Amino acid sequence: MKTFTAASIDALPQRTRANLMNCASGLRSALLVGTRSSNGTTNLALFSNVFHVGAAPALIGMIARPKPEGTERHTLDNILSTGCWTLNHVGQSWVSVAHQTSARYGGDTSEFEALGLHEEWIEDFAAPFVARSMIKLGLTLEQHTPLTVNDTHLLIGRVQLLRCPAEIMRDDGTLNMAGVDPAVACGLDSYHGVNSAERFAYAKPNQPPERLD
Amino acid sequence: MKTFTAASIDALPQRTRANLMNCASGLRSALLVGTRSSNGTTNLALFSNVFHVGAAPALIGMIARPKPEGTERHTLDNILSTGCWTLNHVGQSWVSVAHQTSARYGGDTSEFEALGLHEEWIEDFAAPFVARSMIKLGLTLEQHTPLTVNDTHLLIGRVQLLRCPAEIMRDDGTLNMAGVDPAVACGLDSYHGVNSAERFAYAKPNQPPERLD
Repeated sequence: MKTFTAASIDALPQRTRANLMNCASGLRSALLVGTRSSNGTTNLALFSNVFHVGAAPALIGMIARPKPEGTERHTLDNILSTGCWTLNHVGQSWVSVAHQTSARYGGDTSEFEALGLHEEWIEDFAAPFVARSMIKLGLTLEQHTPLTVNDTHLLIGRVQLLRCPAEIMRDDGTLNMAGVDPAVACGLDSYHGVNSAERFAYAKPNQPPERLD
Repeated sequence: MKTFTAASIDALPQRTRANLMNCASGLRSALLVGTRSSNGTTNLALFSNVFHVGAAPALIGMIARPKPEGTERHTLDNILSTGCWTLNHVGQSWVSVAHQTSARYGGDTSEFEALGLHEEWIEDFAAPFVARSMIKLGLTLEQHTPLTVNDTHLLIGRVQLLRCPAEIMRDDGTLNMAGVDPAVACGLDSYHGVNSAERFAYAKPNQPPERLD
């Protein structure tokens, strides 16, 4: 086993430390964040730091990286100026395309066009969805909190639109994610496919775990 | 395809809505949160709302549910009173045991004892680790922010200790997670195993994605 302390983590080379910490906090779905700038250029960025905040109202959070003076952060800028964004689940079969959005395209280039991903506009929602994605969410900004601890940004969005294949939704509202071949990101460069799920009933004390089909 | 709006999500039965929203925000690693109360009772709770906040300093965030007046929230109470907690990655081979921690055990019962999971105490860290877990982190509370948007709690911890098998850590700091058989949670009742990862080099504009071994 390898053991690190706060001091030995701090002492790692920057890139090694970033890789280690991005992996150690766990695996998370790869999601493409779709936005549009105030001058109309669309943008796509791969995020995996997305989490459930609440169901009533339906809220989803994500962390955006710091924006040092003079740098461009298209996703953050676009969300703050337009107040909305989309989350598009990435499939493992096209994860190489999604990964490519992390290249530094200039502000006038849309990643949709650069990567050949088609935009989808749903009703009057003001940010672009990824046509190829099987599960898509449209969110409006509900809370923006800069985190003073390291200058990252907490963004909480209200779900205004959710679209998914009817056949993966069970009667109880759960989704059979294996049916959409989801890509699960580990750190900044790795993506895992998943197996079919094991499901369990609501747990009760003094009763053994009960498997669901 | 099924399409939901904010209004049609709000109109779902409570349990259905919770299932749908917990799944739709994506898959995330199943992690056992280990704490100890001020009177010494240890506690384990399954969380999957954990995310990377930063690497320098090493910070990890998680969302804890609201604590209405008169309810017990052992994990949140223990973190706020002791200022520390552990995160323990769950393996798919023992996910049924980890799921069982979500049963409502009383305040005097340790989930470690109830479920036959062994406590591990590392150096002088004041919260218990799960011996069986292959990747373990010890965190101290760096920031606690109640989220007024729905009374959940944002907890950000500084990584004080990280232990993982030496053989899964690559020279660049990334972890080969497939080597620890991680359980990835979907919503509140489903857990997926993962396949070996596809890895890609740092993306550059106008160069096709480059696969790493």
